[in-house]
Amino acid sequence: MSLLVVGSIAFDTLETPFGKVDETLGGSATFFSASASYLNPVRVVAVVGSDFDNKVLDFIKKRGVDFSGVYTEEGETFRWAAKYQKDINQRETLYTHLNVFQDFKPKIPEKFRESKFVFLANIDPDLQNEVLNQVKNPEFVIMDTMNLWINGKRESLINVLKNVNGIVLNDSEIRELSGEFNLIKAVKVINRLGPEIIVVKKGEHGSFIYNNDEFFFAPAYPVEEVLDPTGAGDSFAGGFMGYIAKSGSLNFSEYKKGLILGTVVSSFCVERFGIERFKYLTKEEIDERADIFFNMIKL
Amino acid sequence: MSLLVVGSIAFDTLETPFGKVDETLGGSATFFSASASYLNPVRVVAVVGSDFDNKVLDFIKKRGVDFSGVYTEEGETFRWAAKYQKDINQRETLYTHLNVFQDFKPKIPEKFRESKFVFLANIDPDLQNEVLNQVKNPEFVIMDTMNLWINGKRESLINVLKNVNGIVLNDSEIRELSGEFNLIKAVKVINRLGPEIIVVKKGEHGSFIYNNDEFFFAPAYPVEEVLDPTGAGDSFAGGFMGYIAKSGSLNFSEYKKGLILGTVVSSFCVERFGIERFKYLTKEEIDERADIFFNMIKL
Repeated sequence: MSLLVVGSIAFDTLETPFGKVDETLGGSATFFSASASYLNPVRVVAVVGSDFDNKVLDFIKKRGVDFSGVYTEEGETFRWAAKYQKDINQRETLYTHLNVFQDFKPKIPEKFRESKFVFLANIDPDLQNEVLNQVKNPEFVIMDTMNLWINGKRESLINVLKNVNGIVLNDSEIRELSGEFNLIKAVKVINRLGPEIIVVKKGEHGSFIYNNDEFFFAPAYPVEEVLDPTGAGDSFAGGFMGYIAKSGSLNFSEYKKGLILGTVVSSFCVERFGIERFKYLTKEEIDERADIFFNMIKL
Repeated sequence: MSLLVVGSIAFDTLETPFGKVDETLGGSATFFSASASYLNPVRVVAVVGSDFDNKVLDFIKKRGVDFSGVYTEEGETFRWAAKYQKDINQRETLYTHLNVFQDFKPKIPEKFRESKFVFLANIDPDLQNEVLNQVKNPEFVIMDTMNLWINGKRESLINVLKNVNGIVLNDSEIRELSGEFNLIKAVKVINRLGPEIIVVKKGEHGSFIYNNDEFFFAPAYPVEEVLDPTGAGDSFAGGFMGYIAKSGSLNFSEYKKGLILGTVVSSFCVERFGIERFKYLTKEEIDERADIFFNMIKL
């Protein structure tokens, strides 16, 4: 089924205890589409600056990702820099230069408007609402968000929540959005705000999904070398949505498998800096690791 | 199969964001035996002071726990006080008065010496070694430990490690013992030191078990009201060992089920302060929650 993502394309400068990279390709739409592409074709809407050379997207484009919804604005591409601590779950943002992303006005190309599966990556909730106004009859909309919007644009965010099927959040985000520390209670609060599907990502502690009073918990894939967690959340969402879009069946059994595909795909992401791992990741590697994973949680 | 635990009996003073209790029954041997007793009879070796009224153990004794290895020393019973933060995984020890536990010399009664299953709760590794010298032909020995011994008595601890089948540690302990932050690497380091079974407890993030190059990951049971985490680790170990002792089969499939029983039993523990929940917990409640849990991790 058709899968659309609206999000960011950026250049990331990253430092972890294991190294440093300057201005490497990043952004939520990039990680999402790179990972989802192993499972289902993807359509991307985003903005880049006049300094952006589209060739850097070629390795993703080759795998069936349509970047024709990416438009160029005069100015610089979004830039972001972060430094991760020894406890690699802790990171400090060094700078966020929104640049052309500051005035991002997502315009969904006509041919993308009948997309059935939509991922609203982490952008201003007002823009997420605008995307939803442009897409015709989506069957399955999942959103992401972040603490900046939870605190600064709560009303707009609450509005988006009413119009999506589900939301993907990390533990600190869902605690902030719900006002509940206990994650089970937090999920129930969010559920009452609209989304019937709630996915909570807990980094190295795995993730869980809630739907219709049912829970399913998945551990993280046991990766020995985590070089850089950047993009893990968006590639997780990509694996999740890619799997479900491919399946086309909207039921808890498929959501659970989607969660596992998300887990597996993001486990590759963190093995190298930035988007690097996706340059040579194969579908066979994903399938092999998924098999190991299914075995690892089987009684 | 016969199951022996050597550990502490204490009075705990506990403060959490949800309340405070003074001098309530606690200690590793107490929590372990209370939880394991739902699955298999238990034999306890510990020390109490002359201020200890054995009647407080009656509710555990009734369920087939043999406390005849608990001896009384002149002086006060072990006392411990802790305060938990809003993030209930964070706790501060307010005081530790070892009292009679300071000179604990575990003497295994003759009739306990042929115990086939042994749990060495968190005590001085020198004492753990002494216990092993007294038990005749144990089939399955699991140990616990803590940062105090990891830092202060590493050599003795390394010695115990060589003589046990497995170890149960929380994430911070295994990081400290192994010198590895990554838990997968950490497990492999500990494995090389002796134990073929390694259980890592991650509190609200669940647990995993390693044996013979295989991993199995289990989430925590989703408890909405965590009033007090005290004793969760020891009741986890109790459920784990109780299940395996009952089964008597030493294989990975049974260890995985043991991990789940440990998870389920400890999920009850944290719902009330101290040992309180075990005063009215029934086997039926455990079975019911185990069913829900198996369903929750099933694809």
